[in-house]
Amino acid sequence: MSSSPPSARTRVKRVHERAAYDRATLHAVLDAGMICHVGYAFDGYPVVTPTLYWREGDAIYWHGSSASRALKASQDLEVCLTVTHIDGLVLARSAFHHSANYRSAMIFGTARLVTGDSEKLARLRAMMDTLYPGRWDALRPVSEQELKATRILWMPLDEASVKIRTGAPIDDEEDMADNVWAGVVPFRIGFDTPVPDPTTEAAGRQAPDVTDRLTTS
Amino acid sequence: MSSSPPSARTRVKRVHERAAYDRATLHAVLDAGMICHVGYAFDGYPVVTPTLYWREGDAIYWHGSSASRALKASQDLEVCLTVTHIDGLVLARSAFHHSANYRSAMIFGTARLVTGDSEKLARLRAMMDTLYPGRWDALRPVSEQELKATRILWMPLDEASVKIRTGAPIDDEEDMADNVWAGVVPFRIGFDTPVPDPTTEAAGRQAPDVTDRLTTS
Repeated sequence: MSSSPPSARTRVKRVHERAAYDRATLHAVLDAGMICHVGYAFDGYPVVTPTLYWREGDAIYWHGSSASRALKASQDLEVCLTVTHIDGLVLARSAFHHSANYRSAMIFGTARLVTGDSEKLARLRAMMDTLYPGRWDALRPVSEQELKATRILWMPLDEASVKIRTGAPIDDEEDMADNVWAGVVPFRIGFDTPVPDPTTEAAGRQAPDVTDRLTTS
Repeated sequence: MSSSPPSARTRVKRVHERAAYDRATLHAVLDAGMICHVGYAFDGYPVVTPTLYWREGDAIYWHGSSASRALKASQDLEVCLTVTHIDGLVLARSAFHHSANYRSAMIFGTARLVTGDSEKLARLRAMMDTLYPGRWDALRPVSEQELKATRILWMPLDEASVKIRTGAPIDDEEDMADNVWAGVVPFRIGFDTPVPDPTTEAAGRQAPDVTDRLTTS
């Protein structure tokens, strides 16, 4: 398990005992999700775009249409990519100490373009393998035109921090006897029954196994 | 239902039939969640921070510790606040047409500080009422010191856009006969059984009703 020291901007300033900078923790948080929020400056104002991401080793990737303004604008720019899992609501005995349990990762870096058809194909395959193990080979090959219409960005996981809160509320000692329920209401997140496209249904095909990465830990 | 025309930065450029700019749609997307990602520029680089938000009328609020670097840094600055609900994975007959069903709102504006003790108290109460209806009155009053330690920011919903994708995959005509499952795997999100704090449990208190805003639509 490698570990990199925090930079000035990744060092968690407040409640620093909730911070982690090691790769294993970072990978675990990233691998538990699929949607991130990418922030970048566009014409001097901040823009935050939700998008699907995937991790390969110590790099993170996201993609979209070559016509996407957000992807075009953020290429070769500094971005901040944030992944957040909310694990529960924390109900304390005072309003002030209410909180949330969560795992979040914040990655800083310069968004770089993935170039070259074979490189792009390999990345798309990795994305599909991450989300839908085994599905890639069941699909027709990606066409040259589709590849051209797809833009993939990436950055290394060199400058990243993780922040995690778990467990019960932390109340003031003098509130402990108050007549109020306190505890955690956990979130449950997962997949529901697949809804086949009518054409698929008619053909009696089986729904694929989707990765279980989105279930809460 | 009021409606505001899109600005240069809120006008959805791609797949514009998925865009909405009316207040009712915006409110519905915001009211279905509680976590947003706020983007702002800090020392020239973008930062994206996850945080709880709540809506009151045509304003959106978020808060945290007065010592929070993110809150201090974004005050009186342009921010982009994005709320995203992922509703399902869309599995098409080709890799290229895989997609996701989602509802997302993007709000641009200048983050303003909520000032004055009574004003701050009213906003905190509104937040608690949004998340935990009826709970505020069961808790001891917020102290002056706690109020001082809390920073609340807000901005109007004047410049916002919503993007929504629903429904089945949209495949190329020539792929429709391919022998592959196609359809939607919906997400299910909601609350799990509350976990009482040991002290609460011993006293036999009942868990409060948490708002059901986080269940998928």
